[in-house]
Amino acid sequence: MQFRRDPEPAPDSPARPGRRRDPAVDEAVKTAVLELLAERGWDGISMDAVAARAKVGKASIYRRWSSRVQMVAETIGELNRGEAAAPDTGTLRGDLLEVVGAMVLTLRGPLGDASRALIGVLPHEPDLAAAFQEGSLGVWRDTFRQVFGAAVARGELDPTRLGTAAAEAGPAVVMQRWLVLGRPLDDDLAQEVVDDVMLPLLTR
Amino acid sequence: MQFRRDPEPAPDSPARPGRRRDPAVDEAVKTAVLELLAERGWDGISMDAVAARAKVGKASIYRRWSSRVQMVAETIGELNRGEAAAPDTGTLRGDLLEVVGAMVLTLRGPLGDASRALIGVLPHEPDLAAAFQEGSLGVWRDTFRQVFGAAVARGELDPTRLGTAAAEAGPAVVMQRWLVLGRPLDDDLAQEVVDDVMLPLLTR
Repeated sequence: MQFRRDPEPAPDSPARPGRRRDPAVDEAVKTAVLELLAERGWDGISMDAVAARAKVGKASIYRRWSSRVQMVAETIGELNRGEAAAPDTGTLRGDLLEVVGAMVLTLRGPLGDASRALIGVLPHEPDLAAAFQEGSLGVWRDTFRQVFGAAVARGELDPTRLGTAAAEAGPAVVMQRWLVLGRPLDDDLAQEVVDDVMLPLLTR
Repeated sequence: MQFRRDPEPAPDSPARPGRRRDPAVDEAVKTAVLELLAERGWDGISMDAVAARAKVGKASIYRRWSSRVQMVAETIGELNRGEAAAPDTGTLRGDLLEVVGAMVLTLRGPLGDASRALIGVLPHEPDLAAAFQEGSLGVWRDTFRQVFGAAVARGELDPTRLGTAAAEAGPAVVMQRWLVLGRPLDDDLAQEVVDDVMLPLLTR
């Protein structure tokens, strides 16, 4: 076993959320959660497995999260917050190329594999579903909203298209290839989606 | 326990694929597989659980399938074969309304919930992934191919659009709402997808 022992409370001690948490431990745990989800799916996630992979004491994990659902929910809820800034290239096409391109890169990485592993679990775990909707998906929803809002303000986009199936179609092609069809997400997919799906539907 | 004992070989007997199978048992097992996948996800599938739900002897199950992967793969591989006949309304719009409408109805039912439960398992189970691609998805792929082919023959559809992201966009909206966004699939979704996404992209 490779646990690094730490002098913190035992697993059955009450959680102390007020205490300052070590960001390095948080980071190691979240990385371990994503790796295990990608490699083994939801079945691969247990407090023991995450502690071993992250090389942190189980006490550190139980002090932060009381269940694997909480641990995974926080991991996926916060993970791509750093990518939330909407692009501002000055054109709808430029902005969409950046956002859809970022989506493709994210889905190709550990967050993409982890999210796929959770799709079938979400209907059975409401806290996880809420974290998924607010976190990973919320970031993209907010970014598209800002990009579309800027395009409406520039007169590039008809505001009646917002919130319709037409506005969902581009990202949906990416999601379908990745989740359902199991096809690789090519480098030129973002441009095809923007030029052949999104712009024709949104600006015709 | 509610097992119905049958006089067939014990679980460790060799499978006898040549023997005529009782279609009622096949049907009960496949229904049980779908129900358990929908209710409890992949974790809910074991030979014991399926035998109990289907009210058949475990021997009957082991005589047909040597593993849960084989059992689930055959279930999802054959399930919507009955819906494979492509519509022939005479117009692309009429045909698409029928196919997308059937897709919405299927995804709302047990096959939809079962497929969602399997999305995260597919990357780890190649046999299951192959059955999913050939079975459930294969039926839709073949149906769209026939509908698009008829529309090309009538001069309604530009053949250069086939196989592009634009041709995937309509079904992708349905898949994304159901799998990723967790939104209900409304009765009017098929019409919105056909009129606001598919026809503008395919026939403009």
